[in-house]
Amino acid sequence: MKIGLIGTGWIGEEHVRRLAGSVAGAEVTAVSDIDPERAAAVASLAGARVIGSAEELIADPEVQAVVVTSWGPAHAEQVLACIAAGKPVFCEKPLTTEAADGLRILEAEQAHGKRLVQVGFMRRYDAGYRAIKAVLDEGGIGAPLMAHCAHRNPTQPESYHSDKPMVDTAVHEVDVLRWLLGEEFASVQVVVPRSTSKRFPHLVDPQILLLETASGARVDVEVFVNCQYGYDIQCEIVGETGAVRLPDPAAPLVRAAGRASYEIVQDFPSRFADAFDTELQEWVDSLRSGEPAGPSAWDGYAATVVTNAAVEARRTGAVVPVDLPERPAFYK
Amino acid sequence: MKIGLIGTGWIGEEHVRRLAGSVAGAEVTAVSDIDPERAAAVASLAGARVIGSAEELIADPEVQAVVVTSWGPAHAEQVLACIAAGKPVFCEKPLTTEAADGLRILEAEQAHGKRLVQVGFMRRYDAGYRAIKAVLDEGGIGAPLMAHCAHRNPTQPESYHSDKPMVDTAVHEVDVLRWLLGEEFASVQVVVPRSTSKRFPHLVDPQILLLETASGARVDVEVFVNCQYGYDIQCEIVGETGAVRLPDPAAPLVRAAGRASYEIVQDFPSRFADAFDTELQEWVDSLRSGEPAGPSAWDGYAATVVTNAAVEARRTGAVVPVDLPERPAFYK
Amino acid sequence: MKIGLIGTGWIGEEHVRRLAGSVAGAEVTAVSDIDPERAAAVASLAGARVIGSAEELIADPEVQAVVVTSWGPAHAEQVLACIAAGKPVFCEKPLTTEAADGLRILEAEQAHGKRLVQVGFMRRYDAGYRAIKAVLDEGGIGAPLMAHCAHRNPTQPESYHSDKPMVDTAVHEVDVLRWLLGEEFASVQVVVPRSTSKRFPHLVDPQILLLETASGARVDVEVFVNCQYGYDIQCEIVGETGAVRLPDPAAPLVRAAGRASYEIVQDFPSRFADAFDTELQEWVDSLRSGEPAGPSAWDGYAATVVTNAAVEARRTGAVVPVDLPERPAFYK
Amino acid sequence: MKIGLIGTGWIGEEHVRRLAGSVAGAEVTAVSDIDPERAAAVASLAGARVIGSAEELIADPEVQAVVVTSWGPAHAEQVLACIAAGKPVFCEKPLTTEAADGLRILEAEQAHGKRLVQVGFMRRYDAGYRAIKAVLDEGGIGAPLMAHCAHRNPTQPESYHSDKPMVDTAVHEVDVLRWLLGEEFASVQVVVPRSTSKRFPHLVDPQILLLETASGARVDVEVFVNCQYGYDIQCEIVGETGAVRLPDPAAPLVRAAGRASYEIVQDFPSRFADAFDTELQEWVDSLRSGEPAGPSAWDGYAATVVTNAAVEARRTGAVVPVDLPERPAFYK
Repeated sequence: MKIGLIGTGWIGEEHVRRLAGSVAGAEVTAVSDIDPERAAAVASLAGARVIGSAEELIADPEVQAVVVTSWGPAHAEQVLACIAAGKPVFCEKPLTTEAADGLRILEAEQAHGKRLVQVGFMRRYDAGYRAIKAVLDEGGIGAPLMAHCAHRNPTQPESYHSDKPMVDTAVHEVDVLRWLLGEEFASVQVVVPRSTSKRFPHLVDPQILLLETASGARVDVEVFVNCQYGYDIQCEIVGETGAVRLPDPAAPLVRAAGRASYEIVQDFPSRFADAFDTELQEWVDSLRSGEPAGPSAWDGYAATVVTNAAVEARRTGAVVPVDLPERPAFYK
Repeated sequence: MKIGLIGTGWIGEEHVRRLAGSVAGAEVTAVSDIDPERAAAVASLAGARVIGSAEELIADPEVQAVVVTSWGPAHAEQVLACIAAGKPVFCEKPLTTEAADGLRILEAEQAHGKRLVQVGFMRRYDAGYRAIKAVLDEGGIGAPLMAHCAHRNPTQPESYHSDKPMVDTAVHEVDVLRWLLGEEFASVQVVVPRSTSKRFPHLVDPQILLLETASGARVDVEVFVNCQYGYDIQCEIVGETGAVRLPDPAAPLVRAAGRASYEIVQDFPSRFADAFDTELQEWVDSLRSGEPAGPSAWDGYAATVVTNAAVEARRTGAVVPVDLPERPAFYK
Repeated sequence: MKIGLIGTGWIGEEHVRRLAGSVAGAEVTAVSDIDPERAAAVASLAGARVIGSAEELIADPEVQAVVVTSWGPAHAEQVLACIAAGKPVFCEKPLTTEAADGLRILEAEQAHGKRLVQVGFMRRYDAGYRAIKAVLDEGGIGAPLMAHCAHRNPTQPESYHSDKPMVDTAVHEVDVLRWLLGEEFASVQVVVPRSTSKRFPHLVDPQILLLETASGARVDVEVFVNCQYGYDIQCEIVGETGAVRLPDPAAPLVRAAGRASYEIVQDFPSRFADAFDTELQEWVDSLRSGEPAGPSAWDGYAATVVTNAAVEARRTGAVVPVDLPERPAFYK
Repeated sequence: MKIGLIGTGWIGEEHVRRLAGSVAGAEVTAVSDIDPERAAAVASLAGARVIGSAEELIADPEVQAVVVTSWGPAHAEQVLACIAAGKPVFCEKPLTTEAADGLRILEAEQAHGKRLVQVGFMRRYDAGYRAIKAVLDEGGIGAPLMAHCAHRNPTQPESYHSDKPMVDTAVHEVDVLRWLLGEEFASVQVVVPRSTSKRFPHLVDPQILLLETASGARVDVEVFVNCQYGYDIQCEIVGETGAVRLPDPAAPLVRAAGRASYEIVQDFPSRFADAFDTELQEWVDSLRSGEPAGPSAWDGYAATVVTNAAVEARRTGAVVPVDLPERPAFYK
């Protein structure tokens, strides 16, 4: 599978390295970026060509599938161009920054008639979340009633502003919870604790999302992006007969100096390294045998609608309904 | 220390057994109950006399200290009678069912001039909570910002109604969190997930309390009293530099039949057996050397005000302020 | 129960504090020590009399039961004197330092006709070991085949010599494993790793005992008394269908500075505080209702025979048989 | 990298699937097996050619590197043929069944002048063992003194005989401990508990290896291949200042029916799936940039010498020296 990649920033470079170095059956043959020097540097990691523009890359006859890792506002047009060209496209989250653009993608893909788009929600490929999903599917805890989650980062740079906990960060929680619970969210409220002193002053941190699903399950998500101590993802699902908790990554327990301890990773590339590998390998595998099997354009759209509602909820203090149309049969 | 006990129901009998069988320096010499046969049966466990009424027991010259384990609505008058008699009194929670009665007790005790009243919030004596308190006091996680808690019971009888998750159950969480966080609650909201099917139909279960402290720390408490699987108390405090979690009771990990597992206790007497022992031992010890050192009448009053506000919050769906007067210097 | 205590060293003082301060139904009314000033200081903790000699204390008509916490070589005569006086006696381990003295105690007690002696093997009262015992008794792991154990102390003083890992330290492992496995040891071998540099030079540390039971179960016990990091007791029993492991004491998990950690206790009084409480409470309770129910003179004797064999095994490098007579019916 | 694979049994098929499906930069272009139908079936998984004999496959000009997954006795000649052909060869363990054959390989490879051989000790690629290695290398527990290990399988087929616990099973422990401790073993003893009733009668199970390293560190390895409950690998290294334990694979903790539990895997392909992936990816990567970086022919030889000594130790009951020549500078 010959792949072209658009956007050679940090995550773009990571994906090039993965596709070249740890994914079987794929090669990156073309890259494009608004910064040609950066594009050349990343292209050299995989022996790929540099192509001048996203449009040309998508149109290039050698490119069989596209990875979009440009910045968020550019995603919509690039994904639409891929659909127009009939080429499979893996788009990093968010699928779109504006919900209206997501609707355009849904329409275009349905008009095309088969799935082309996959969105980069890598948590669905994490072994821990998959094991939770298996427990739920086997009825191991009965029907889910609640989820208690936390998303903690050690720190954030000054550019990280108070909408980002929803749009950039909680979007992963929103997607993986939709997937685990098997239903859509109906409303969202945000409550705001006293902010930590260990942050840039403009930032509201932590924030807590309170979500309700269509069936009335309740989810709380702590988003705390300057927790200092590590990159820490927690998730407990509580059902009618039991509860299940996401495990910490396996790490040796060291007994020394009066404490037993294990290491906590410090960033998401460490935490989800295997999930990224699996995500891209399964994407490549699914393309060889037909349509992409991972998170769809609908999943990308729904997550954006929820996180946009969460932004409004934080700003207004109100319970904000999640205004989602009915899921098209195409995406069921 | 010669102790008289009023109310020989389940918890009264437990306390008689403890005072007679595992607390040093105390003996139960008198008991009283509205059911004289029951009183006689429990008295025989400790070789105690049966006294006809609470009033007589409190007045009895041999009785040096009183334990009140009668039903809630009777607490206020019995505690007030003990104060009038100048005798130390250990009163099971709730101190009073009506907040106004709590105020009368506060006034009477202050008029008496030294502390006589201790309220039976046994969690402050649990080794796990005490270890969390030590971590907080040492600055091990920085200033607390959030707490995530759960109180789960396997089942409840039909008599358990939808206010009880607040008044009977969450009252323990409210007290222990006030103690851990070192401040009062300012408001409370209740959100209600879809109820479990495994309950009596009249009951709203689970319920989630959302509390805010005076300084803006945020606490969520899941109260789920028909969780089926066990009696399970969870508590995580998140501070500016770290987080600390209440441990499960130590239990051997058994590897068998494809799983590694440990037992979960099924009731609060098992979960808090050591805490009850320590509570009564420390109460008796403190009396020998002066005033009671445990949870005060103010603590009992404050918890009642919070749980009454939570009842209103669930009924109205609103964020309800906790209407607490300033804490008297006497109780600081 | 009026108790006289002989030997007011560290453990003697601990037992006086416990009997006075956290055991119901007992009081220490007399103490004796070769150092009268020390005796007086400890006596004052409980309002007890000081008696000039062990013999007088045992003979004192007020003393109903005796606790022997003198140094090991004095145990035999004092326990024999208690038996001669027909008084129950709780003797700290080791029951005797010489196995021959243990035989004399066994004979004297059998001649007396009912049990009077209990030996201070407190691990049988630890909640973790008791839970393991329950798993074994329920068949939770099938018939035991192996046990893997470790006994680690942070450091030892200069007076601790190379026989002590057996005689003073592993004696607890030997007793609790006899109790858990329900059978006697048949042989013992000792293998000696390279010694740690963090010890006094005369000491062989660590040492590993390899024990075989009568039925052929195999036990390895690491004894490492300068492990630096904490007081740490580990035990895993492996049976035909599963395995069970002694839990670490419950302690909150703290997430801070890139690690999740919990505290390890630093000494045995912290590790076994509850076990000591339970041990003395149950001893007092059992006396009120008849004979002592805890570890018997036979248990004390058998442990001494095993640890003496282990001393020989270390010195010779050989597999040393445990030369134990048949257990008298009196002790079954 | 075009790879030829010899021996299409279970592990051969696994490696073909991995090289074709999850390793980047490699393709299997030729396979060979004594059973041509089996060879054809496995070849079809990767679109590879079937070649009639191992010799022809090694000589085939298209084949750039060889994977040897034939049965153990055939390894020596095939590896020697690869060396003669100057082709890199990945050989599954054991490198040879006879130690003398190992010496021939060492000589041939040294005569060739650069490393060509890597042996399939996949544990060195397991994330848990690697994290332990990092702790040791950072001095996190001081100089190692002891290791306590267990290798448990749920069951074994009737063909599994009493030497196999050493030769087939403990060989992995031997290699990974040599690697972790950074030194060779000097002697081995085997002690044999009463065998489990849940085995074929001819099999001695469990067995315990007692190993001593050149520096005097002591290792015990329980090998229990009919433990019934799961595939379970345990390893604790104890150093002068601390201890570190191999983590169980991360798995969600499920609270249900009175127990908190997590799943134990049932076979080594599940337990070491990621390790196998990493092993082959790193092998392929190292070939592209020069010599193989993984376990060498020396490692394969040394492991065989140790396990052969262990077989003798079990048969004789004696402490058997590990008769290893000095490690050639070539392999340092």
